[in-house]
Amino acid sequence: MRKSNQNKLMKKDQYSLLKEKIKSKEFNSVFVLLDENTDKYCLEIFINKSGINTYNKIVIKSGEENKNIDTCISIWKELNSHKADRKSLIINLGGGVLTDIGGFVASTYLRGIEFVNVPTTLLGMVDAAHGGKTGIDFLSLKNQIGVFSMPMYVILDSDYLKTLSKQEYLNGYAEIFKHSFLTNSTDLNFDSLIKLDFFSDIDFIINKYSHIKNKIVKVDKHESNIRKILNLGHTIGHALESYSYLSNNLNELKHGEAIIVGLITELYISNQLNNFPLKKVDKLKEVSLKYFDKIRLTDSDLEAIYDLMTFDKKNNKGSVNFVLLDKSGKPLIDQKVDNDIYIKAFAYYSE
Amino acid sequence: MRKSNQNKLMKKDQYSLLKEKIKSKEFNSVFVLLDENTDKYCLEIFINKSGINTYNKIVIKSGEENKNIDTCISIWKELNSHKADRKSLIINLGGGVLTDIGGFVASTYLRGIEFVNVPTTLLGMVDAAHGGKTGIDFLSLKNQIGVFSMPMYVILDSDYLKTLSKQEYLNGYAEIFKHSFLTNSTDLNFDSLIKLDFFSDIDFIINKYSHIKNKIVKVDKHESNIRKILNLGHTIGHALESYSYLSNNLNELKHGEAIIVGLITELYISNQLNNFPLKKVDKLKEVSLKYFDKIRLTDSDLEAIYDLMTFDKKNNKGSVNFVLLDKSGKPLIDQKVDNDIYIKAFAYYSE
Repeated sequence: MRKSNQNKLMKKDQYSLLKEKIKSKEFNSVFVLLDENTDKYCLEIFINKSGINTYNKIVIKSGEENKNIDTCISIWKELNSHKADRKSLIINLGGGVLTDIGGFVASTYLRGIEFVNVPTTLLGMVDAAHGGKTGIDFLSLKNQIGVFSMPMYVILDSDYLKTLSKQEYLNGYAEIFKHSFLTNSTDLNFDSLIKLDFFSDIDFIINKYSHIKNKIVKVDKHESNIRKILNLGHTIGHALESYSYLSNNLNELKHGEAIIVGLITELYISNQLNNFPLKKVDKLKEVSLKYFDKIRLTDSDLEAIYDLMTFDKKNNKGSVNFVLLDKSGKPLIDQKVDNDIYIKAFAYYSE
Repeated sequence: MRKSNQNKLMKKDQYSLLKEKIKSKEFNSVFVLLDENTDKYCLEIFINKSGINTYNKIVIKSGEENKNIDTCISIWKELNSHKADRKSLIINLGGGVLTDIGGFVASTYLRGIEFVNVPTTLLGMVDAAHGGKTGIDFLSLKNQIGVFSMPMYVILDSDYLKTLSKQEYLNGYAEIFKHSFLTNSTDLNFDSLIKLDFFSDIDFIINKYSHIKNKIVKVDKHESNIRKILNLGHTIGHALESYSYLSNNLNELKHGEAIIVGLITELYISNQLNNFPLKKVDKLKEVSLKYFDKIRLTDSDLEAIYDLMTFDKKNNKGSVNFVLLDKSGKPLIDQKVDNDIYIKAFAYYSE
């Protein structure tokens, strides 16, 4: 009971801070960026909680396929037509796609205006809205164009999750699993995480598991080094996600659906190359397959995904760099993985 | 004689440093961004001096009218098709338009790759290539979209100036005049500057007057405060430049042509409001009109230019902020100027 009251108080504080800043005339104008869904389901909640009543609304189309330069151009135009200036504020109310594009648009308008992220999906709350990676897709490649730019702050409020389908909700869990493998805290590691209730413990999960990311990002804002560990599961996961958009063989995958496959296969590779305990990989596979459908991939799918990996922006000169875990679970960056181990990992995933 | 040898040595050193960095495999691939003119007149000089022989060439159309998002998209595509990765380097060889757009493209490709500016115009050498302001025009508004992002370094080599017309060459002098009003050094102030030979003393001028800007930028990378003094002459100058592109009444002005008018009128306003010595304004007008044609403007031109000023990105909430000089020549930021003084300043300029 007390814990839940604390959470409520914390949520309220976040909105008060924002309202105060706006009231104190630190900003000349306020823009709320929405997509079709958050306009319909989240704006009212946000307005009620924040009490902000003077703002311009910009609504973009939902979906990763609209995270592109044309959408940026349309937002820049709207900002321009409402005479947004250097002291305007953009509030990004939406999922990862919206906070990515909203952060990029804000960071490039007049060489950068302030923005606040209010993630409305679990994925956004524990991952996408944090850390300053902004950007858009370009030529079917994810986040090819963008900048590193930190939001002024991020408002975390699980009440928005009530607006999501169960599938949308679960989409965030891949990153939560990932973060559980990247913490030293025995209270938050994978073994502890799976003892929690994925629904009723959600406030605790959002606060603790987003904090794991923020701690890592803080020491390496531009992904020169340590931050790379956050790419665990993403070498394969990203390529699989891109492939699902490019190929007709596969339905388009949600980010979390692809990352969970990346996580399982890359932890299996960690087992094969570094003796990371197979028991943990088995457990991850078991738990995640309760929530996520297994993706069926053919040999030619796997070949195409491998080719895409060689063009991920984190890789230099055609070689593929993985983040793997060592025997004790410590992350190792810039690890090379041969194609045969990659194939073997998918055999393990599929069996 | 000794001074000229020193200059030669310095130029050589800059290229050696670049070549060394590239040779040491710090970069996986090198792109040279050019426009039609620098491709024709400057690339060979650059290649001969730098000795770089493995590079990809990207050529864009010349001119401010191409400093737009479509050109960015075409450059991003070329980078992509040559598999540029995070360890690629872009060398921007050109004038201010090219270093502005090249810096923006580099800073947003894969969330930012390194770039080197090699300005080929005097304006670029003393101003545009320095300080990290990158960007493009949008909806006829100059530099509406962009980021602050510092080049790895800037190579200053007056040999490129030999490729310019006299008009192109002189285009840089407005900023040099401006810098002379922003320095405390009696060796470099306006009175000293006009004693120099605008052609034979050019190496000295480039090095010293670009340094004035760099010193100011260093303490205020994001134009929060001190850096604003660099906008001296630019409130009116920028609006006039934009207007010359929008209006049929006027030929399109070069940046320097517009800024010199901005400088004369804003110093006259400084005289009217702050007692800045009229003698200096007279002298600036006299010297600059030797090199720059007087621009004829009607009352309705002046009205339209005033309207444009209220939408400059440095201005908040519709009010127009000027940088003015006080009696002793010290710059003052965020100064308000009424329309009647503005009109009076143009009467002075035109008489």
